[in-house]
Amino acid sequence: MELIKYLDDFNERDWQYTSEGTVRLALVGLGWWTVDMVLPAVKDSDLCCTTTVVSSSKNKAEKTASSEATIEHAITYEEFHDGEAKEAFDAVYIATPNARHLEYAETAAKLGKDVLCEKPMEATAERAQRLVSVCDSNDVLLMIAYRVQTQPAIRRARELIDNGFIGKPVQAYGSYSQPLLGMFSNPDQWRLDSDLSGYGTSIMDLGIYPINTLRFLLRSDPTAVTAQTESFHEDFSDVSDERSAYTLTFENGTHAVCTASQNAYGDSQLKLTGTDGQIDLSPVFNGECTLELARSNTTVQISFENVDEMKEEFDYFADKILCSGSVFPDGQHGLVDMRTLQAIYRAARSGQVEQIK
Amino acid sequence: MELIKYLDDFNERDWQYTSEGTVRLALVGLGWWTVDMVLPAVKDSDLCCTTTVVSSSKNKAEKTASSEATIEHAITYEEFHDGEAKEAFDAVYIATPNARHLEYAETAAKLGKDVLCEKPMEATAERAQRLVSVCDSNDVLLMIAYRVQTQPAIRRARELIDNGFIGKPVQAYGSYSQPLLGMFSNPDQWRLDSDLSGYGTSIMDLGIYPINTLRFLLRSDPTAVTAQTESFHEDFSDVSDERSAYTLTFENGTHAVCTASQNAYGDSQLKLTGTDGQIDLSPVFNGECTLELARSNTTVQISFENVDEMKEEFDYFADKILCSGSVFPDGQHGLVDMRTLQAIYRAARSGQVEQIK
Repeated sequence: MELIKYLDDFNERDWQYTSEGTVRLALVGLGWWTVDMVLPAVKDSDLCCTTTVVSSSKNKAEKTASSEATIEHAITYEEFHDGEAKEAFDAVYIATPNARHLEYAETAAKLGKDVLCEKPMEATAERAQRLVSVCDSNDVLLMIAYRVQTQPAIRRARELIDNGFIGKPVQAYGSYSQPLLGMFSNPDQWRLDSDLSGYGTSIMDLGIYPINTLRFLLRSDPTAVTAQTESFHEDFSDVSDERSAYTLTFENGTHAVCTASQNAYGDSQLKLTGTDGQIDLSPVFNGECTLELARSNTTVQISFENVDEMKEEFDYFADKILCSGSVFPDGQHGLVDMRTLQAIYRAARSGQVEQIK
Repeated sequence: MELIKYLDDFNERDWQYTSEGTVRLALVGLGWWTVDMVLPAVKDSDLCCTTTVVSSSKNKAEKTASSEATIEHAITYEEFHDGEAKEAFDAVYIATPNARHLEYAETAAKLGKDVLCEKPMEATAERAQRLVSVCDSNDVLLMIAYRVQTQPAIRRARELIDNGFIGKPVQAYGSYSQPLLGMFSNPDQWRLDSDLSGYGTSIMDLGIYPINTLRFLLRSDPTAVTAQTESFHEDFSDVSDERSAYTLTFENGTHAVCTASQNAYGDSQLKLTGTDGQIDLSPVFNGECTLELARSNTTVQISFENVDEMKEEFDYFADKILCSGSVFPDGQHGLVDMRTLQAIYRAARSGQVEQIK
């Protein structure tokens, strides 16, 4: 029976080619995300191991290295640029503030190392383009860390849409909010510093999730946007978008409406409504996921064993390096998001529909 | 304990002053809504009875009258304008196509009858203003039929927001879609005829629900809008908005994003996210309602005995006529929606943020 197989295979890695081999990683940027989320995920992965950690502070690097037996090298950013420990890693994961991605990707590319770069790719579309170019010209692979694309519920949702479950897509909704100021005893202030974060904070850091995930699900890119952004709290004085609302019109005619906030109760939802059905994911972007499917006046809620999206992502990246010699979501894919973000912030200033160039 | 009282009182009519008295109604416009939804609701109400039905067709009026013992008069629109049966009713309910509301309201007002007028009030903001003026100058009460404002879950949600449950409101989402073409064997074509429907169809007919309900919940009005509208299906060739996406910026700083479609799988949701919590209603606008409340990382889902919103609305209208001599949502309240709709359709054409004038 189809439903038996569907549930049994729900979490299967439909992307995996190999279960053998190891990609040795240098992790660049040791913020809470890398230390609390990435290091354990890599340790738990099948195809990766961390051999090198890179930080502004030698002390921080050494402290992090001492927590994990596989780490052989704890180096500073300067030492990384100088090529220290370069024989110890095959690929580089970049999780610094947005505006620093380019410089580490440049060094990684020149060292001949493949790159997994956090999203958004860089502070601006122009710098993201330079990042793509340097990886291309040095013939290294560049993947952008859209972990949600490896989430099984998202992959099953994409299959459903491909197979006509919702009919023709009509409209979509995406939201992502979090109470940033209350999340850390020592807030990651770079997200509120436009020199480091780029165009802004709520759409750059959170709003990029519905944008990219809708592109992935619909296999269609946005062509035009509108946006409203506002900042009220004093901690957001350097960025325009403590809260934001934005709309996307896709090539295939789908209208999407989205909100993002760095200073609101935590929420995440992604909903696609078509002519014949609906797919509702809530929560969705914060590492958890539930899936509700509706069609023919019948609704199904699917709960499943949660996966560690970062483990999935690192194994996915390694699998592609080891087997295929190409990778997706690649730099060109990420550039579409950067140009979309650029247009959204332009629309917030102009008050007009802005085309994505 | 507070929770016991909360659940016991959930569906209580917090608006009711009297349980005695009867308001005799003339129902103008005998489409499926009036026949299938309103007639049974009025029959079931405590404070109303239908004595008169008014239709373009004498035959249709008489057939409808024969189904309900309290109906004494089955008259045509012309007979209504001529004052026939005017002693038999105290108030008039208008559920004709939008562009015909004004003429029946004018006659009702001149006959000295209070008016309950379906939303949207009229085809345009200008005609809605004339509708308000004629009721004012003839000193009759005018209520706009926002049935959702009498939905207990909406009233409880409003109390929660008033009491700070979600903190400061940050952003909101509203959606309402239906597969109009498949809903009736003989489709209500007037919704697809711009002469009768007014500015359009999906926002006029469906999109008005999130607009008005957000105003009711937030006690704040929108000041500026953006919008995208598109029609694809041949049956929508006379209206611009088979599907629509629109955003509202409220006086209190809340950003709302909304979608509506007359040619999509049925969906309705209204979600408000604040600094400290969230209220999610889904479904919400189609007569059913569920309520999900989140705060302090704790989520509550409230199911309750569904009310007949039309029965609530008619008893509410009658209660105000019998007791208070004033009514809300009144014509001035409805006019804000009409000006908002006008600005939304203007924004869809201009591609710019439009202020609500």
